[in-house]
This record gives sequence, structure tokens and C-alpha cells, in this order.
Amino acid sequence: MRTIHVKTASADYPVHVGYDFLARFGSHLRKIAGKGAPKLFVLTSPEIWSLWGKQFQASLPAGNSFSVLFLPPGEQHKRFSQVERLATELSAAGADRSSLLIAFGGGIIGDIGGFLAAIYMRGIDYIQMPTTLLAQVDSSVGGKTGVNLSTGKNLVGSFHHPRAVFADVGILKTLPPRELRAGLFESIKAGIIRDPGLFRFLERNRDAILAGDPTALNRVVSSSVAMKAEVVGIDERESGLRMILNFGHTIGHAIEAATGYKKLLHGEAIAWGMLAALHISRSRAMIAEKDAARIESIIHAYGPLPRFRARVPALLEAAGRDKKNKAGTRRFVLTTGIGKSIVVENVTDTEMISAIEWTLREAAR
Amino acid sequence: MRTIHVKTASADYPVHVGYDFLARFGSHLRKIAGKGAPKLFVLTSPEIWSLWGKQFQASLPAGNSFSVLFLPPGEQHKRFSQVERLATELSAAGADRSSLLIAFGGGIIGDIGGFLAAIYMRGIDYIQMPTTLLAQVDSSVGGKTGVNLSTGKNLVGSFHHPRAVFADVGILKTLPPRELRAGLFESIKAGIIRDPGLFRFLERNRDAILAGDPTALNRVVSSSVAMKAEVVGIDERESGLRMILNFGHTIGHAIEAATGYKKLLHGEAIAWGMLAALHISRSRAMIAEKDAARIESIIHAYGPLPRFRARVPALLEAAGRDKKNKAGTRRFVLTTGIGKSIVVENVTDTEMISAIEWTLREAAR
Repeated sequence: MRTIHVKTASADYPVHVGYDFLARFGSHLRKIAGKGAPKLFVLTSPEIWSLWGKQFQASLPAGNSFSVLFLPPGEQHKRFSQVERLATELSAAGADRSSLLIAFGGGIIGDIGGFLAAIYMRGIDYIQMPTTLLAQVDSSVGGKTGVNLSTGKNLVGSFHHPRAVFADVGILKTLPPRELRAGLFESIKAGIIRDPGLFRFLERNRDAILAGDPTALNRVVSSSVAMKAEVVGIDERESGLRMILNFGHTIGHAIEAATGYKKLLHGEAIAWGMLAALHISRSRAMIAEKDAARIESIIHAYGPLPRFRARVPALLEAAGRDKKNKAGTRRFVLTTGIGKSIVVENVTDTEMISAIEWTLREAAR
Repeated sequence: MRTIHVKTASADYPVHVGYDFLARFGSHLRKIAGKGAPKLFVLTSPEIWSLWGKQFQASLPAGNSFSVLFLPPGEQHKRFSQVERLATELSAAGADRSSLLIAFGGGIIGDIGGFLAAIYMRGIDYIQMPTTLLAQVDSSVGGKTGVNLSTGKNLVGSFHHPRAVFADVGILKTLPPRELRAGLFESIKAGIIRDPGLFRFLERNRDAILAGDPTALNRVVSSSVAMKAEVVGIDERESGLRMILNFGHTIGHAIEAATGYKKLLHGEAIAWGMLAALHISRSRAMIAEKDAARIESIIHAYGPLPRFRARVPALLEAAGRDKKNKAGTRRFVLTTGIGKSIVVENVTDTEMISAIEWTLREAAR
């Protein structure tokens, strides 16, 4: 088990990455709780609980009771109405300010659980126990929580860091292969923007990783988390460096929105968004062709990327609504080589349209 | 105009108290915005806007456009569904991370506006412009924001400080007299728990204050704010000293809940709650009878307190659900003299029942 520390101005917590440590979770929990004996509440999905609930329960010390709250699967439940229902359930079950919430599930469980913990009684402690690769390498680290509005994803939320994150790659063996592949695009992103060693590891160990080899996944998850932890430690509130984590996300989010969040998984849309961003880097000649080719090649190696159709104005408009934009400027992340990225504010409409048109052509082939 | 600074670990902002400065608001706003020109959004009630909207608008520099969002009056609208609607309106109107929200209204506007600002795009700046005495002396200062659940009031929310507070006592002239009186109970509380000078001023200037004399109100509001600012500066997150602000609130909140939030205004319920807490201080002989009599007398002087009926078990149960309680303990604030208060955790059920029974007898007379 490797432990990575996230240290920011407002938080300091460990991310434990390893495999098959769910059985030892109870002892970690005792350490976190210290002398207190907080009431425990587990937010999970019916599916995860049916697969892993028994092991979770068995790992807790005898007599350590807890309540289980369920969120049905699907992005359509990442809404205020569910947060209100869950908060009401917490309150009816006697949760108080010293209670501890454990978000045990994928990214939606983590985002809703974190937001619930952020606002219940103006903030209670919580633990992230991500069960998808995407949640392990990305959303469970960094303290961002949120829910969707009808006008866009994650438009409301809080910065609220967990007390600890437990990422057990052993749990990934019950993850559908397509979800594993989609999650890996965030690790590929980590390699592209800041970690050439991880990039090489992903290039060289594709088969073992896609086959779910725990040692290989352990390396991928821990390096991805370490990269993100470092970036978040430097820039917690996304005023500067943290923006690079958004590589591929401006156009990726727009593709998700334009396709109604149905056709593509998040990671797949980000893969297309990274190809689009790479197109801009290339046309600016700010990246060596050898590096650009390796980036293109690794993205396809972890595919296939689902095809999709969309209209240019819809994508352009959706990209303009990105919440990273500030007072009219368009912020955009470009790569300048393997492990290198920069944030620019001067991407023109013409460049955007050219990148979108190129992407749509690729996506229609 | 007097300016009081709230300085906490996470925030540092001015509270401006004075009268008839609404006309000069625009120039203050320019100072706050600095070089930026944030998009402005005003959250208000139809009533306040019809009374003061023109003046507000006239105070802004020409060409400074803004959007107005409305919240209908009444505690029943302090709910998630309204926050979701307002966040969606913000997003549809193009609010981004650099936008500025102005909460222009009473306590509910302030609480909802603060919460909306806390979670919209994970936090945007906001300004409090409280238009009721209660909001001016209490809820607009300290960074607490929140909404209600069906299981209780303010059970969800955030700590999110405003960039500035503008409390214009000139606006209070359109406040119904009963609301003025109810709000003054929070100032009386400020005097009881920490400010003997304010207590004396309230004793000696009752008639001018109740008549709405702006000089007298200015003194009351600024002293109340100064007391709260000092306490919040020492203990932002209510881990210690800030608890004293809860004087009268444990049983007061229970009375509000047991009477369905209809019969009594918040301040009136708190007045009854302070009398109940005083009953406990007296029966413990921890307060000189002379001081106790002055406290009782000033509360009645700012009455009359509406009568109400409730059942002992309902009040006891509601008081036990108070969110200040932690892991089974009951925290309670007692006064030990004019300007003096302590937080205890050893109030017994017997003492609670005795205080509740006494209060119910008084309230039935």
C-alpha cells in the first residue's frame, strides 16, 4: 500500500492506494476517528453494496454500527433533490456534527457524498472510498464536490476535502472493461500534462493494465494520484497551476453536453477533447511532431473511442460556457510535449472551430 | 457611518453601519470590485425591491448593469428547491466565477443568498445588505448560511463570509414595528452575554429605539455587530466561544419548531428561550437576583411576547435535536450576570423539564 499526502492551505490528508485492503479498513478507520466514536454513515450504490457490502461490514470492529444510505446509479441522480433527500435521511437517522460519512462508490457517489458532507450542518467529516478507476485517479482527490443543474454539470458544489481517501484497486475487478478504459484516459492525461514516467509506463504496459493486473493498476493509480496531489497542493482553488488538470476538458465537456451525456463516458469524451487540444498545439507548432504522434497513438491504444456526431456551433457554445472561464476570457490548456502543459487565454474562435471541425471529422469516420 | 471589521482565520471584511447611505452604495461597490467589473446579481424580495429598488438602482454608476433575482417572502421558501431555481437562473443569465451577488433583504434572503454564493460554481463573492433589524444585528455577520430541511431549520448550509456588509438603519423605517421589536431581542441577547454597556443603553433608551430613532438604532446595531464580530473573530467555526451567541436559542428554536414557525417571530421565540435559560441560571443560583430581575425586566420591556402553547415532551425532544449538540452531549448557554455568559454541558433533563414547564406556564398566562 502506498500513501500519498495531499497538503493544501486548508487540508492535509492521506490517500491510500493499494489492493485488497478493504478487509483492513476498520483499523484505519479507528485511527482516523481517534478517541471519538463518531456515528458512521455509508453512502453507496445498490450495486456496489451488493458486491462489496459484506466485506466492508466484516472489516469494521464488532459492535461498530453504521447506517447505509443509497443513491441510485446514473448521472440523472446527481441533483439537488437527491442531496436534499439524503440530508433529510441523515438528520432523521440522528447524524450530528461529529458524524462521519463514507462515500463508497464511483464518481457520482463521491461528488454527491462530498457535497452532502460539505453542507450537512455546515460541514461534517467524510472519507472517500472510490470504486471506479476514474474516481480513484481523479475525482476522489482534490476536494471538489458538486451536483448538476439543468443548465450544466457541476455548476454548484463546494471545496471540501475528505479526511482520507482509500483507493483499493482490488475493487476494480468488478468494474466493466469499458469503464476501466475510460478511466485510464485521466491517467493518460496525467502523463501528458506532467508525468513522462507515467506516460511511458502506460505506453509499455497497456496489455497488463487493460487486463486489470493489480500491480500495474496500483502503479497507474498511485502515480496519477501523486501528480494530482502535487498540483492541488500548489494551487488548491484553481487560480493557476490546477487549471492544467483541465487538459482535454474544455472541448471534452462540450462533447458530453452536445451528446446529452449518453453516447460517451466521461473519460471517452476527455480523450476526444485531448485530441482536439493536441490539434491546436500542433497547428501552433508548439509541440514536436514525435511527441504529438506518441500522444495520439497512446489515446487510440486505450480505445476504441466511440464515434459521435454533433454540430460545430453547439460545441463552440458549450465550450464557451465552461466554468473555468472568468469574466469573458477563454482559458485553455495546451500540451507542449510529453509531461508538459501550459494554460493560455489566447485561443481564438478560429482555432476553436478548426479543432472542433477536425475532431468531428475524426469522430464520424 | 461606523465600520466594524470582522477578522477570522478565513476572512477579513468590513461591516458598515449607518443611516441613509444607500444612495452612496455605488461608490463603495467600486472599491470592493477593484479593477474588475464583475457582473452584478441582486437577490431580493418583491416587497423590498418595490420600496427600495429605485434608490438602489440610482446609487449605481451609470451603465453599471445588473440582474435582479427574486425570492418570494416566507420561511417556506428557504429550501433547496429555491436554491436550485436561483442557481439555474444565475447560470442562464451568464453568472461566472467572478460575478458578485448582493443579498438585499431580510434574514431569509441573506441566508439563501449566502448559501447560493457559497455553492454556485463552488463559491462566488457576495455582499450582505440586510433590511431587517434581525438580519442587521445577527444573521448578516459571521458567515453562516443555510436552508431548511423538513426535519429542521438550517440543517444544511455553509460557512461563507461576505466581502462586505452594508447595514443601513434608514431602511428600517419601512419595517413593521413587531419585526423591529423581535429583532431587538438579539441585541438584548448581545447585551446579556457580553456587552453591559449595550444592555444599559437598551434599558435607558427603550422609547427612542422602539420609535425607530436612527441615532439610537445606529448605536444598537453597531454595538450588536461589534460584539458578534469580536466573538466570530475569536471562534469562527463555533468550537468554543461562539457558542455563547446561542444564548436563548436551544429552547427558543424548540419553541419555534413546536409552534410550527407560525405563532412567533424568531426573536420572540428567542426571548422566551432567554427567559427559560435565565430560569436555569436562577435555580442554580449562579446569577445575582438583581441582575436576573434586570434581564427579565428588559425582555418584557421590549415585548409584549406573544403567548403560545406547546407540550413538554415535544419541546424537550426538539431541544435535543439542536445541531450544536455533539455526539450525545447537550450544550447549553447560561448567563451569570449582565454581560456574562458560559457554555455548560451538564444541564440535566430535570433542569430542562423544569425550565420548559416554567416557560409554558408563563406563556399561557
